Amino acid sequence: MTDDDTTFSRRRLLGTVGAAGATGIALGATGGVAGAAVTRDDPPTDLATVGSTAVAFHGRHQSGIVTPQQAAGQLVAFDLTPAAGRKEAAALLRRWSRAAERMMAGDPPDGDHSGVALDAGPSSLTVTFGFGRGFFERTGLEARLPDALRPLPEFSADALDEDRSGGDLWIQIGSDDGLVAFHALRVLQRDAAGTARVRWQMSGFNRSLGATPEPMTQRNLMGQVDGTNNPKPSDEDFDKRVFVPADGSPDWMAHGSYAVFRRIRMLLDSWDEQSRAEQEKVIGRRKSDGAPLSGGTERTPVDMTARTGDGDLAIAADAHVRITPPDANQGAAMLRRPFSYHDGFLDDGAPDAGLLFIAWQADPLTGFVPVQRRLDSGDALSRFIRHEASALFAVPGGPGKGEYVGQRLLEA
Amino acid sequence: MTDDDTTFSRRRLLGTVGAAGATGIALGATGGVAGAAVTRDDPPTDLATVGSTAVAFHGRHQSGIVTPQQAAGQLVAFDLTPAAGRKEAAALLRRWSRAAERMMAGDPPDGDHSGVALDAGPSSLTVTFGFGRGFFERTGLEARLPDALRPLPEFSADALDEDRSGGDLWIQIGSDDGLVAFHALRVLQRDAAGTARVRWQMSGFNRSLGATPEPMTQRNLMGQVDGTNNPKPSDEDFDKRVFVPADGSPDWMAHGSYAVFRRIRMLLDSWDEQSRAEQEKVIGRRKSDGAPLSGGTERTPVDMTARTGDGDLAIAADAHVRITPPDANQGAAMLRRPFSYHDGFLDDGAPDAGLLFIAWQADPLTGFVPVQRRLDSGDALSRFIRHEASALFAVPGGPGKGEYVGQRLLEA
Repeated sequence: MTDDDTTFSRRRLLGTVGAAGATGIALGATGGVAGAAVTRDDPPTDLATVGSTAVAFHGRHQSGIVTPQQAAGQLVAFDLTPAAGRKEAAALLRRWSRAAERMMAGDPPDGDHSGVALDAGPSSLTVTFGFGRGFFERTGLEARLPDALRPLPEFSADALDEDRSGGDLWIQIGSDDGLVAFHALRVLQRDAAGTARVRWQMSGFNRSLGATPEPMTQRNLMGQVDGTNNPKPSDEDFDKRVFVPADGSPDWMAHGSYAVFRRIRMLLDSWDEQSRAEQEKVIGRRKSDGAPLSGGTERTPVDMTARTGDGDLAIAADAHVRITPPDANQGAAMLRRPFSYHDGFLDDGAPDAGLLFIAWQADPLTGFVPVQRRLDSGDALSRFIRHEASALFAVPGGPGKGEYVGQRLLEA
Repeated sequence: MTDDDTTFSRRRLLGTVGAAGATGIALGATGGVAGAAVTRDDPPTDLATVGSTAVAFHGRHQSGIVTPQQAAGQLVAFDLTPAAGRKEAAALLRRWSRAAERMMAGDPPDGDHSGVALDAGPSSLTVTFGFGRGFFERTGLEARLPDALRPLPEFSADALDEDRSGGDLWIQIGSDDGLVAFHALRVLQRDAAGTARVRWQMSGFNRSLGATPEPMTQRNLMGQVDGTNNPKPSDEDFDKRVFVPADGSPDWMAHGSYAVFRRIRMLLDSWDEQSRAEQEKVIGRRKSDGAPLSGGTERTPVDMTARTGDGDLAIAADAHVRITPPDANQGAAMLRRPFSYHDGFLDDGAPDAGLLFIAWQADPLTGFVPVQRRLDSGDALSRFIRHEASALFAVPGGPGKGEYVGQRLLEA
């Protein structure tokens, strides 16, 4: 890709969309905190700036964790090839980081002339890199394997497909634009040639919220408002719950996070056969606006002791919300940041659809694991879902200028 | 779904997004011409109106033809069940029309409490219904089978999968919001129970252009600007090329159109191995901005006789643009309105990705067929694509108030 090409692309964007700030707003506004979406707090007020939102590649944390959910997602896991060792892995992470940095700024990556993302602007692209347990064995880095990366326990309701679980390396791609996300996947896969090959790949989507000033909580494919109780960056203990502390262990994971991935198929035909009242009882929230059945609005704290006029618990004993809140799990909390998925129909005619569940936490043993243990033993929702794939990745902190993701692991 | 629910949904939308006109702008602006997106000509200038764009269900033409391309698409074909005849088919079309009308207005359809599309607003939802050749045989309506619905000829490069081709009935769903499109698919599939079953289903996407005042021509997954030469509603002969005339034959197809569908897989690994110059030569257009290699900008007419400094034809003899323009095909023209698709990877590791090609024309025999015949015999692009599925549907005109789609066929 020549400079000439970039110029044409920019000109096409500016000329046609007609926004003087189309690239300026986004590309000038780097350096914000923590790899979050740096322009979303101050959304543009002009519809002509579609695609102009950029997320910073450098920062304390990697992008795609605190960043608001995007409309299009690509998840891809790789295994290192037999010929690849630590040196080749380091070179791959260097290539990947360079490509991610350029694409997140809306620029074509080195050596790519595909043009699929031309004109799109950054489109809130985020690229998040993680390391699976196998990576450490394959690269002779067992001594730096985090304790937190020990295999997740088995849950009674799991029906896991090994071919779509695990992986030595993982990339989470998100963008407001499906072509930008597809392009990033293609570029990063090409960069892996000879060093790592795709183990599994999944595509997901969310409601397109664009640059709405206060994004609504997303709905999932069950129609349920999903994510109300998520920790918020403004919470006092947000960093403590989601990120490894600066002096955490191992040191290369400072400011990093652990991603638990679960492909959760929803048994939508069975779910939709339930009445609205039955569905609400399973979750413990009103479908219309996400308010707890104990009363109030979406953000009202759930009153677990409230009773209906008949004297029954307003929130049923096995309601999903009764089991998941932090105060029911010794303070456990994780930041859930999923995509929905829909891969057509299964052989029996049921939709192959559900949630690409992604949860971020400082430690899975105090985040995902205790919550899932409780859900596994008594959640009314479990009758309507199947966990079909699972993975756990160590996601190091964001790279500094001139650094590549994982450098502190691979070169220390 | 109770009224109560709708109220909550609206309130949540208005309260959170904070746009007084969020539903008002869209829902008040019906009655525009021809089923096109009635609010897109006058786009809202407030980002808070995400999802508020509504497309009219009633009109001269069905929606989803002239409507600007949306970000999310669902294509689904059905076959009538053995027990279903003309009466059951008419009842189904009545149910489908009623559901489409409500969902396109942003309202929950009758009997649906799934809530997946709550809060989303209309989100430019379009639902387009078509009839395949088999429908007429199954319903005893052979006498009304349009001549234009005769099977497409075979092309030498076809590698068609019958299971993903054809169908008695077809629905094209498009929306700016992936959840709204998914919800519409679920609702319409449920409405078909007992009368028709899914034959094939495919999901697609486009660049999200939101309500940009002058949408750019979309790019496809080859990175090529695709659709520059499309007929435009402002063209003098647009209606003549795209729609069956008011006094056309058969009479029930007045103001209707014929949709040719082709699932075209792109051999992206081979394509990306070509240099940019080679790719541009295959197409005949510059990748950066879509300008023809004979000079100018995207909209400049292609000069087929132009020569390079070396004396070669600027547009190669087998370039894609040389074969496709109307003046090379006895005036043939069709409105191409595709979605891209990406269904993961094939067994050999190649991406299962490409174009869900949908072309609209008054008559396939003067639209798609002659163009495809020429492409089949000499298009440089054919080395990089495979036609894997094919279908042809008669899409009747839009319903009047109180009418359902296809009523003039089923009840005349």
